[in-house]
Amino acid sequence: EYSMKILLLPGDGIGPEVLAEVRRVIDALNAHHGLGLSVENGDIGGASLDRHGTPLAPHVLEMAKASDAVLMGAVGGPKWQSVSYELRPEQGLLNLRKGLGLYANLRPALCFPALADASTLKRDVIDGLDILFVRELIGGVYFGEPRGIETLPDGTKRGFNTQSYTTPEIERVARMAFDLARQREGRVCSVEKANVMESGLLWRETVTALHKREFSDVALSHMYADNCAMQLVRDPRQFDVILTDNLFGDILSDAAAMLTGSLGMLPSAALGEPGMPGLYEPIHGSAPDIAGKCIANPCAAILSLAMALRHQLGRPDLADLTEKAVSHVLDSGYRTGDLLGGEDTRLVGTEGMGRAIAERL
Amino acid sequence: EYSMKILLLPGDGIGPEVLAEVRRVIDALNAHHGLGLSVENGDIGGASLDRHGTPLAPHVLEMAKASDAVLMGAVGGPKWQSVSYELRPEQGLLNLRKGLGLYANLRPALCFPALADASTLKRDVIDGLDILFVRELIGGVYFGEPRGIETLPDGTKRGFNTQSYTTPEIERVARMAFDLARQREGRVCSVEKANVMESGLLWRETVTALHKREFSDVALSHMYADNCAMQLVRDPRQFDVILTDNLFGDILSDAAAMLTGSLGMLPSAALGEPGMPGLYEPIHGSAPDIAGKCIANPCAAILSLAMALRHQLGRPDLADLTEKAVSHVLDSGYRTGDLLGGEDTRLVGTEGMGRAIAERL
Ligand SMILES: CC(C)[C@H](C(=O)O)[C@@H](O)C(=O)O
Ligand SMILES: CC(C)[C@H](C(=O)O)[C@@H](O)C(=O)O
Repeated sequence: EYSMKILLLPGDGIGPEVLAEVRRVIDALNAHHGLGLSVENGDIGGASLDRHGTPLAPHVLEMAKASDAVLMGAVGGPKWQSVSYELRPEQGLLNLRKGLGLYANLRPALCFPALADASTLKRDVIDGLDILFVRELIGGVYFGEPRGIETLPDGTKRGFNTQSYTTPEIERVARMAFDLARQREGRVCSVEKANVMESGLLWRETVTALHKREFSDVALSHMYADNCAMQLVRDPRQFDVILTDNLFGDILSDAAAMLTGSLGMLPSAALGEPGMPGLYEPIHGSAPDIAGKCIANPCAAILSLAMALRHQLGRPDLADLTEKAVSHVLDSGYRTGDLLGGEDTRLVGTEGMGRAIAERL
Repeated sequence: EYSMKILLLPGDGIGPEVLAEVRRVIDALNAHHGLGLSVENGDIGGASLDRHGTPLAPHVLEMAKASDAVLMGAVGGPKWQSVSYELRPEQGLLNLRKGLGLYANLRPALCFPALADASTLKRDVIDGLDILFVRELIGGVYFGEPRGIETLPDGTKRGFNTQSYTTPEIERVARMAFDLARQREGRVCSVEKANVMESGLLWRETVTALHKREFSDVALSHMYADNCAMQLVRDPRQFDVILTDNLFGDILSDAAAMLTGSLGMLPSAALGEPGMPGLYEPIHGSAPDIAGKCIANPCAAILSLAMALRHQLGRPDLADLTEKAVSHVLDSGYRTGDLLGGEDTRLVGTEGMGRAIAERL
């Protein structure tokens, strides 16, 4: 008997609004497709800080470990701007990633045909765009020690962080990228600043050696991060899989997501060792400027659920069904405010979009 | 009597080709506009490594210090890919920046009207785009200690670098950004990852305090680097001056330069304390793929000379004249291969473009 369990962590800003629509979709799948997925709810980020005094309570991390997949909304917002460093909402997310050992962040940047005109890029540059970022997620400057702010003898201050990667840390995420490339076009572009950073040099050498040893059927190229930022603007379709570290991945994958004109549409997955629950979340943030207005696009969150159904909840058939429902609703002209309307489109709010998708199911 | 001196450092790849055209322009200004600028030449990067066994020889750094401005082509290329870390071409550039104390890198991203169609972005998104990046250039992860690659007890390796900023380092570059904003639209956006890095938090606090103390007439905003990458794609014209650190500045300013469609057109300046020579160079790199083919665009290098004439060589009049000559030649339809042609344009090589500009002078 199917007894999978998903933990929903709405978080801050538009997080609760978009997760309410995910809940609606789960209910529809449970009712009409015999999914039988149990749902728990938990707090994270600023919402958790307000309620429990910490951005990730230990019992929530335990709930996450005990579930089959975790789906998060978003964290952060101006309300918590001045809380002390270890209490800020983002720290909840970082602790969750670290606590579950989620070393690989899969962030697709793909262009939905119905939305190609919503991009600021010319249609012929992004039509059919389909990049998969594999971003290292629990190492690098996000977690490196030592770190902090110290007062120097002359009374001035010094802020410092450590960018650090070991061979095994690089190998496990690179292996994931090569494996995924084999299921796609078979090309990996590894991105760092080996020309100015030793950590980048070790990254390049380690990826090169692993490629030679185990993945010589995959095409491997290397690119400096600044050049990659340029190439994403110049000709994004040159890329298949982009493998990069935590910080470069944060910046470059966000730029790439925006290229598609479909930011509100893009899901992501953070994966660790087999057997550990993955963390699924929209690429977009908590968008405090539109929070509470019920206009946020719930598609990225719903498609994150689809990723979870496919990769961890044992129902790739329902993943397909959910993705098709989203496409169908878009093709029928439903648009949230973030998506440029056009002829024959209909502007809907968060709930309108969620209902349309759930009804289709 | 005018006795200014400029040091030309052609470097690698297309560097020598584009600096030959700068030389042609200087000759024209000397001959027909009584400039009287003396020119010296020196080696840097891979070219210097090949000739002197080091990417920046001490006597070249001395020549740089003794000149009024330095103009560089570009450094780096596949030929030196496997030289040891402290000998790579890029190290020559880093040592030059550090040796001259050039803490502020001014990188304009602006869209030349005649070239707006060469961008991959829609014309209405980038028309009139004019952003000035002020990038910190001799601190951060590029120079922070400790750094290196070490072997761990279990035989695996660890590569590490240190991101580090002190209050005075942040203040001096922020002051430059605020000063420049006063001559523009009066808006500074400061960019970091204060939500995950303590060095970014100190950056934000220091900029905020300086603003309050000395520059409250300037409008200051803050943005996380990942969001900035998105906003540059979504609506680049929202920015006036972007102030950021060495690494984020490297990546974001390159993305912004590519947005304009005018990469081969963009100059930059690295400045230090008053009295020190600045380093002027095109934003583009050494472009090994087209090196030696005589097709590179010399405009960015020639406009870098114009920046030097304006800011350090005491001839803003000739800076204007040079910039006008470049505009005029573009308006007359001259295009190098990097610039999308169109009706009534004429494809020329590096020398063809340089000659047209020099003749105009
Ligand atoms: C919220 C923040 C800590 C996070 C990050 O920087 O990793 C976000 O930008 C992301 O990309 O998931
Ligand atoms: C060549 C390289 C060291 C340099 C840098 O990373 O600073 C370049 O990319 C730049 O932006 O000037």
